[in-house]
Formats: sequence, structure tokens, C-alpha cells
Amino acid sequence: MARRGPETPWEVRASTLARNTNNLIRNIIENLKVKPNPEKKLIPLSLGDPTAFGNLAPPDELLQAVRDSIDANESRTYGVTNGQLEARQAVADYSIHQGRVTADDVILSSGCAHALELAITVLADVGQNILVPRPGYMIYMTLAEGLGIEIKYYDLLPNQKWQVDLESLEKQIDTKTAAIVVINPSNPCGSVYSKQHLLQILDIASRNRVPIIADEIYEYFVFSGHEYTAMSALSKDVPILTCSGLTKRFLVPGWRMGWLIIHDRNNIFEKEVRKGLRNLCGRLLGPTKLIQHALPTILKSIPQHFFDGVNSYIESQATLAYKALERASGLRPIMPQGSMYMMIEIKMSMFPEFKDELQFIEHMYSEESVLCIPGQCFLYPNFMRIVLTVPEDILREACERINVFCKKHAVFKEKAMGIVATSLSVDKEWKVIY
Amino acid sequence: MARRGPETPWEVRASTLARNTNNLIRNIIENLKVKPNPEKKLIPLSLGDPTAFGNLAPPDELLQAVRDSIDANESRTYGVTNGQLEARQAVADYSIHQGRVTADDVILSSGCAHALELAITVLADVGQNILVPRPGYMIYMTLAEGLGIEIKYYDLLPNQKWQVDLESLEKQIDTKTAAIVVINPSNPCGSVYSKQHLLQILDIASRNRVPIIADEIYEYFVFSGHEYTAMSALSKDVPILTCSGLTKRFLVPGWRMGWLIIHDRNNIFEKEVRKGLRNLCGRLLGPTKLIQHALPTILKSIPQHFFDGVNSYIESQATLAYKALERASGLRPIMPQGSMYMMIEIKMSMFPEFKDELQFIEHMYSEESVLCIPGQCFLYPNFMRIVLTVPEDILREACERINVFCKKHAVFKEKAMGIVATSLSVDKEWKVIY
Ligand SMILES: Cc1ncc(COP(=O)(O)O)c(C=O)c1O
Ligand SMILES: Cc1ncc(COP(=O)(O)O)c(C=O)c1O
Repeated sequence: MARRGPETPWEVRASTLARNTNNLIRNIIENLKVKPNPEKKLIPLSLGDPTAFGNLAPPDELLQAVRDSIDANESRTYGVTNGQLEARQAVADYSIHQGRVTADDVILSSGCAHALELAITVLADVGQNILVPRPGYMIYMTLAEGLGIEIKYYDLLPNQKWQVDLESLEKQIDTKTAAIVVINPSNPCGSVYSKQHLLQILDIASRNRVPIIADEIYEYFVFSGHEYTAMSALSKDVPILTCSGLTKRFLVPGWRMGWLIIHDRNNIFEKEVRKGLRNLCGRLLGPTKLIQHALPTILKSIPQHFFDGVNSYIESQATLAYKALERASGLRPIMPQGSMYMMIEIKMSMFPEFKDELQFIEHMYSEESVLCIPGQCFLYPNFMRIVLTVPEDILREACERINVFCKKHAVFKEKAMGIVATSLSVDKEWKVIY
Repeated sequence: MARRGPETPWEVRASTLARNTNNLIRNIIENLKVKPNPEKKLIPLSLGDPTAFGNLAPPDELLQAVRDSIDANESRTYGVTNGQLEARQAVADYSIHQGRVTADDVILSSGCAHALELAITVLADVGQNILVPRPGYMIYMTLAEGLGIEIKYYDLLPNQKWQVDLESLEKQIDTKTAAIVVINPSNPCGSVYSKQHLLQILDIASRNRVPIIADEIYEYFVFSGHEYTAMSALSKDVPILTCSGLTKRFLVPGWRMGWLIIHDRNNIFEKEVRKGLRNLCGRLLGPTKLIQHALPTILKSIPQHFFDGVNSYIESQATLAYKALERASGLRPIMPQGSMYMMIEIKMSMFPEFKDELQFIEHMYSEESVLCIPGQCFLYPNFMRIVLTVPEDILREACERINVFCKKHAVFKEKAMGIVATSLSVDKEWKVIY
């Protein structure tokens, strides 16, 4: 049977999955209608990449481990699809803070994003939903919606250190809820939850029989006086899939090495989920063995002072930015407790010439060449996110420029000025940075 | 609204996708009911991995390029999700045999399997089907079925050098056919199609308005007197997604570096498919930049004699195995023209004690410690596949043992002996190799 016949014109559609896979940050930032001010050096405070400026670099031990890996034939042969035993064992040892973990509980993935894809796609079916925090990093939407998995949002409380609005969380749970995503420490909030708060979340998950996906890619990124606790270490019954990787802590985002860890004290995942994860691993045949092979050394050889150094650097940057932006007219920075971001409220009523925070950010970009991520990228208007890992002098300069911009545009009487921003020119050539 | 309430027992299912993602080879080989003969050294002719034995190793230029990559900060930062421009440009230059290719037509992926996942998932929707060759490598099934995409099979003709049964191909096309997969050179057949035959396939695709997914991971793997032609180089109108990578030709299967190339002379993919592919790239954020960064050097610096050396080695191995197995009772090897495999027909009527070729293979494994892949792993009973890249002395030894086994078990009168194989002991500990 001929399908369409030679008279029919060619017509090839993209699948529903492909059409409905969207990256919110990318869509918004790539469509910014502005260019930076050519007279001021561009400062992207937008990039969630601690290595973007070259001021933070991975330790020599890590680079040497991969150099050694290159010479081993074993790093070039096909591997097992859930990851090499030695590498999985190394991740298990590294992750004892999460509770009892064996190599069998570990699956290696191509970055944390891939671990999240495995977690979401093993738990949620077409027509089901997963709950994610708002504001929150949006990769869950990118991974789920194309597959017909709905994303529902629970609120975080900006005035309570971005803790979960527990009522909002429980209200969102319905019979179709396949998982709750908890990001701790948080992107974009920089919050770090206390044990007590994590137990409150676990209690809701437990009472409603919903598994948790714990996105802990910022594990250990905490400032002094705060403590990071793995969700899984506290769970008595709630089965948890924890996702993490080398990306942030080991300063190699481009290497794409992540992992998923199964925590399941009561063998709830034994029936189908473990096998389902193994099945899903058969799709891409595992992450690059060049790095897998180096994992045991990487995870064991790096001295603690390296990590401490990075943390205290980020903390001092947070303090710097907080102090500088606290003074800015119309802004309210919220001091983070960890990760590498800070959220800043923009009191939009003081900037009546801008219709929303996106326009505020576009104008700041075109006048001051400072780019921040608008809150709408995290479904959270009236805020912006800055990244704290940029070099100190650059952060200082950026904060000054933000201050100048705010001073220029803030209106102290709470009334609109009736000025509408003129539509700025679009430049297709301009390279995206975020 | 509580979801299930604290009295309900926990019940967490795996998604349809996870449950329906299967790897046929893995399922069959992992469930073999036998162990190798402890008195004979194991010879796995099953592993589609040219680096498994260490006799074939990548060239120094490739290793050096990645060593240099480690030292570049640029290899560690986040990249663009379809791959770095320089790396995509290098793949475009490397792929001029495929027709006009620009960097914009290239998407970098985590191995060829990932490129195939992108190709299949961008073109086929739930309820549609893709056509794949039988016998054929089965990753398409693994990638498609869980998503509700049906796999339909068109036949290859063992007595016509495994060419496509064109009638069978055209008959399989229906209104739900989203793509035709063509593997050339072929796994498992070792066939290499002539220009003329490729044009016949293109003609069918063209008349029926079906795009092609060209799996050319074995591009250039051809024996003397044969010529590899890229499908896309011949297409006048049929849009083609060609999938390939470093895996086989550059001898680094564990590194997971592949690519997809869009060939679309009449802009049929312009409407939705290109954008759909970009969307899909946003899921995993690109393959490891450690290798991306080295790609320009890898693809340009390796001298032709390196590739020629590998090819002539595989060809001489093919000749060796062909000559040795031609003599074996009850076997009919089919001489390949390229890739790195040989298919061998097992005249099952001469082995009446075995109910199928799987049992033949299990017994050969337990008696002679030689493991081959049964045809059913490619949905093609009564055949087995061997891999030709093993060291020469090992291949020679394996062929001798196969001969011994066949001599012992072949029955020359074409009648059943009434002997049914006793069920062999299962060993859960035994490590899988294929
Ligand atoms: C909360 C969170 N999860 C996951 C990721 C993705 O990590 P990876 O780059 O390892 O895929 C990010 C990256 O910014 C993140 O912020
Ligand atoms: C025909 C074919 N396509 C694709 C692949 C997968 O290639 P990769 O390992 O690059 O994912 C293989 C591997 O054996 C293959 O034989």
C-alpha cells in the first residue's frame, strides 16, 4: 500500500514529544530584544556555570585522574549500561551522608539532567503529574511536558528563607501525583533546608504515599552556620531517588557526569521501579567511560580544603552582593544560605516605566551591560537571580552598575510615570549567555 | 486532598515507558542457562566491541587530542546543547562524503544510540511506526517501543548479499510510517549496499514520502572491491537523518561520542523537524565537552593508513573465518563485504538434538566456551553472528572449536535423533559478555 503517493507534497511533522519539549530559560533569554551597551564590558550574572569565568577551576587531582583514564584501554571499551561497578561503588562510598547506599543503588548518568530524566520517566506516566517548587530550576518541565507528564507547582516562601509552603504542597497532591521534586540546596533561591523542615516535607510525602525526587546537585554547597542534610538520610519510609553529579561541586559542568541513587528502605521500588531504571539505562548505553573510569580517584582524592575554599569564596561573594544590593533603590536581595545563587526582589511599583521584571532586566542589560535571569524563567515574576561565582571585581562592578541603574529608574512616589519602554532593536547575531 | 492516605500500603509502579523499554540481546544473553566449559578459555565472539580484546586501539593522535582537551577550561564549561560550533563544523567537514553539510546540520550526541534516539523521537509519534531491517541491530526497538512507537520489519535477502527485499519494504509502509531505518554497512550482516541498491531504496521512500534514518556508524568499514556510499549523497528529495560517531571507526565505544546529520535538500524538515531536534537537545544539555573539544583534531589528524590498516585486518579475519567455517558441518557462513560481523546459517535440520539456534549456541558455549549471538537477537532464527575484530589466534582457535562442536553434533541423515537437550544449570553469578 502506497503511503501518500508521488503526487502528494512532502509533509513531515515533528513528534508531540519534540514539539512539546521546551526550555523556558532558553526561550526567554534567546528572545531578549536587546543588546548590551557597547561601551560597557558585558557582565553575565546569568550563567549557572561556576567555571564560566575561569576563576574557579577543578583541582589537579581531578584532571590527573582523567589523564590517567585516557591511557587505560578499559576507559574506551563499551561499559555496562548502569555504569561500571567500581565507579558506582565510588559514588556509593561518596554518598554515605545520604544513608546506606550500595553500588547496586547507583546509576551513572550523563549529567544530573539525565539522572533527573531517568527519575521522572521511571516514575511518571502520561497523564500523571509531578510537583516541583516555584520558584525552581525548570529542567523538570523540559523533561516531563513533552512526554505528556504534567508539572504542578508548590510554592516556596520568600520571607521564610524560601521554605516550602507545606499547605500549598499538600494541596497540590492528587491521585495522579507520581513524585515530588525537592531542590536542596536550591537553584535559584540559595536556600538550605533544616532537618526539621525536611522532615515536614517527608511527612507529607509519607502520608500521601508519594515518592520524592531529591535534586541535590548542590549538596555540600552551604555557608557557615548552615548545614546540608540529605533528604534520604531522614526518610523512614518514603522512597527517594536522589540526583547529583560532578557538575557543580567538582567544577566540570561540561563533562556531563551525574548519578542517580535509589533510597528505598521498604523495598517499594523493588517491584517495578528498579527494573524500570535498568531498562531505561539500555537506551543510551551509559555515560562516557573516560570519566567513569576516573570517578573512584576523583571522589576520593580531593582534599576537603578545596571544597571549603570554594564554599567560603561563594559565601563572601554572597555577602558582598547582599550588602551592595541592599542599598540599591527598589531592590530587596534575599541572603542565601548555600548553593551559588541569590534571588533579588524587584519592587516593580518603584519602576513604573517597566511593565515587568523582564523589561527591567532588558533595560539594565542595554544600559549597563549586566545580564540577570528574570524571575519568569523560574515562573516567579518580580524577582531576578544572580550567580555568585563570578570573579570578585566583576561582581563588585556589576553591583555598582545595578545600583546606578536602579537609582536612575526608581521612582519614590508610588505612582506610575506613564512612560512605556520603547521597543528595542533585535539582533539575531547576538550570542546567548545564561 | 490526600492522595492515598496513611492506611493505604505504598504502591509505586514504573511508567509504561520504563516497563516497555527492552534490550533484546541483553534479555536473551543474560538469561542463557549455561556456563562456559571451565577447562577451555572463554572466547566471546559476541561482543560488538572492537576494543574488547585490546588488539585494536585508537591512534595516538586521538588520545593526545583528549589529553590537550583536559587542560582547556573551555572543555569544562557548559556548552550549547546541540554541540559546540567548532566540533559541529569538524563533523560537517568530516562528512562531506554525505553531501553538502554545514555545522548547522550537525547535532552532537552521546553516542550513535543517542543520535538514533533523537532521530526516532523527533520523527515518530505514539501510534506511528518505523520500519527496520530484519535481521538488524535492535536498538531501534529499545528506543521506540516504550514510547508507543511501533517497530515494523522489512526483510533482507541472505542469498542476495543481504540486500533489502524491496517488495517487502514497500509492503510494510502504511499511513502511519514515520521513517525507514537503513543500516549500511550492516550490523549484523556485514553487507555493504551498492549505489544502485541504495537508489532503489530511496525510490521507494520518495514515492511513499517517508524520510530515512540512515544508521552509518560503520561508514568506511568496507573490504577491498567494495565501496561505501552515504545514502544522503544519492538522495534527490528524500530527507535523511544520518547517524554516526566515533564509536567504531575511531575505536572508542565507551567514550559515547556520536552525531546526527540533517540532509534535507528541499527544506522538508524546515517546518518542524529541525526545531524539534533543537528542542530535544535541551533535555540532556549535550554530550561531554571533554571529547567535543578534541573532535576537530581527532577528525582531521588521523592518517588514512590507520583506517586502512583496521579495514584490511578485519577483511583478513573475515576470510579466515569464512574459510574455516565453510568446512564446518551444518554451517553456512555468508561472506561479508564490510562492517565487522559475519552471519552464519546453522542448518538446524542437521542438529536435531537442539530445538533452535539458541540451544545450539548454549551447548557450544558450555562445551567449547565459544559464545556467539543467536539470530533471534536480531529476530532472525537459524543464524548466528560472530564478531571479526578479535585477535587472529583467538579467532582461529574459536573456528576450530566451532568445527569440533559441529562435527560432534551434526547428523548427516536428515532425520531427528529424538534426543532432547537436558536443561542446563543456571548460574546467577556468571558475568554477561556480548
Ligand atoms: C537544581 C539543578 N538540577 C540539575 C541541574 C543540571 O545539572 P547537570 O548540568 O549535571 O545536568 C542544574 C544545573 O544548573 C540545577 O541547577
Ligand atoms: C548499527 C549500529 N548502530 C548503532 C550502534 C550504537 O552505537 P554507539 O555505541 O555509538 O551508541 C551500534 C553498536 O553496535 C550499531 O551496531
